[in-house]
Amino acid sequence: LCSSPSNRSRPLSCVAVCGGTHGNEMSGIYLAKHWLRDPMELQRSSFAVTPFLGNPRAIEKCVRYVGQDLNRTFTTEFLSSTEAEDEPYEVVLAREINQTYGPKGSAQAFDFMFDLHNTTASMGTCLIVDSEESLLPMHMCHYIQMHYTRSPCPIYLYKLPGEETYSINSVAKAGLALELGPQPQQVVRADLFSQMRDIIACALDFIELFNKGTVFPAFEIEAYKITGRMDYPCYPDGEISAMVVVPAPALLFSLGGRNHSCSSRMPAKPTWQ
Amino acid sequence: LCSSPSNRSRPLSCVAVCGGTHGNEMSGIYLAKHWLRDPMELQRSSFAVTPFLGNPRAIEKCVRYVGQDLNRTFTTEFLSSTEAEDEPYEVVLAREINQTYGPKGSAQAFDFMFDLHNTTASMGTCLIVDSEESLLPMHMCHYIQMHYTRSPCPIYLYKLPGEETYSINSVAKAGLALELGPQPQQVVRADLFSQMRDIIACALDFIELFNKGTVFPAFEIEAYKITGRMDYPCYPDGEISAMVVVPAPALLFSLGGRNHSCSSRMPAKPTWQ
Repeated sequence: LCSSPSNRSRPLSCVAVCGGTHGNEMSGIYLAKHWLRDPMELQRSSFAVTPFLGNPRAIEKCVRYVGQDLNRTFTTEFLSSTEAEDEPYEVVLAREINQTYGPKGSAQAFDFMFDLHNTTASMGTCLIVDSEESLLPMHMCHYIQMHYTRSPCPIYLYKLPGEETYSINSVAKAGLALELGPQPQQVVRADLFSQMRDIIACALDFIELFNKGTVFPAFEIEAYKITGRMDYPCYPDGEISAMVVVPAPALLFSLGGRNHSCSSRMPAKPTWQ
Repeated sequence: LCSSPSNRSRPLSCVAVCGGTHGNEMSGIYLAKHWLRDPMELQRSSFAVTPFLGNPRAIEKCVRYVGQDLNRTFTTEFLSSTEAEDEPYEVVLAREINQTYGPKGSAQAFDFMFDLHNTTASMGTCLIVDSEESLLPMHMCHYIQMHYTRSPCPIYLYKLPGEETYSINSVAKAGLALELGPQPQQVVRADLFSQMRDIIACALDFIELFNKGTVFPAFEIEAYKITGRMDYPCYPDGEISAMVVVPAPALLFSLGGRNHSCSSRMPAKPTWQ
């Protein structure tokens, strides 16, 4: 249940779209590169959209990251650290991104940031928000679910209670991450590329309506939270001895023949970390 | 059209199954590791099956190869080269594998070698043979197509006229490679794992029947050969500007909106190299 975001009276003026926060997740990288060549399809009348590449050095090498995971680096600890010769590339980069699109938590920060991801897991077209308390992103998710009907768009609320935000879009005042899969790392699938492109278009339409004063009433919505973590079963030497069968129900298929089912009191879906 | 392999009177006694020729293609790696722990399901009455890991160092790092592609290294040039300090790891490895399962072209060589691969491309359950002149593998493919009906098993004949064989299974007297996809590198999909396991079981059943004197009559079969190569369209700076839409018909989807179709006088399917 979300109350209306209309109490947030100020329209959004600066919006960023980041591809390549992880340098081997290709839908967002190809989209951002395309928009940097031709930003026309990002244009709306009431606000500006800036596409950018999150981790240029990782993108060049086509790896997730060079020194450490950029998308875990936007914490007070890293953002306020002083320059050091041996610090990871991503710590330097995070401070630069924070200067350009933040500073995090300040009035100067961008109003909204989209962050584009892929996964090899069958997560479908997943919308990732920090928590249900983020009203504007939750209304955006609701709008996407109503208007983008090509595939279901489940919502994943990633932040644990009391945890500090650490992701790249936490630099902006609000944000939404897209996680589309399954797609191999280093590979572009035309279907997922189009889905991501269409969802961003839909989300920009929502911002345009919001800026023009459209009232979005309260609603009920289903969203997923982390309920627990489970390690893969292993042989005594540490080698993984089972694999997950998709689609759900979550079932671990043992190489030796004996299967394990993941019991849960609530309907649950597996995600991977 | 293939004539019967029954003129090949000697039964097969030594068969090898290789997983991890490419160290990030996980179905074969997990299968080979499983069989090394528990070889029971490979046992047949008339011949011995030896599972092995093709490129242990690449498997440990979970990369395709360390120095050069092992599966292009089984040529006379590399196999007859003398040891050198700075030679790639895979050249040393190829000579060792050739000693164990060959020597290539000799009477001492293993009778048959299976080589297990994955691809990120939607190639389905593809059976790879060097050419239609390899009678026993062609009969095996026919048997698999008749008895493994869970998914179509197209045949790909990879060798160009006059080209020397270079793949790991060319060390044995005959061979078959499986190429299952789509599966991300470094990832195991339970469904493809099971398919690969079932196809190997089916192929071993064929060898058992062949050894016991079963007559396999001539047949007609469809197989794919390379008809041409086509580069992706690019922007002037070399960046790829289009992606392939699967399933076929092969269609290149341009980022800028203009699409290209791949015309051909014959029914053709795209593969990736």
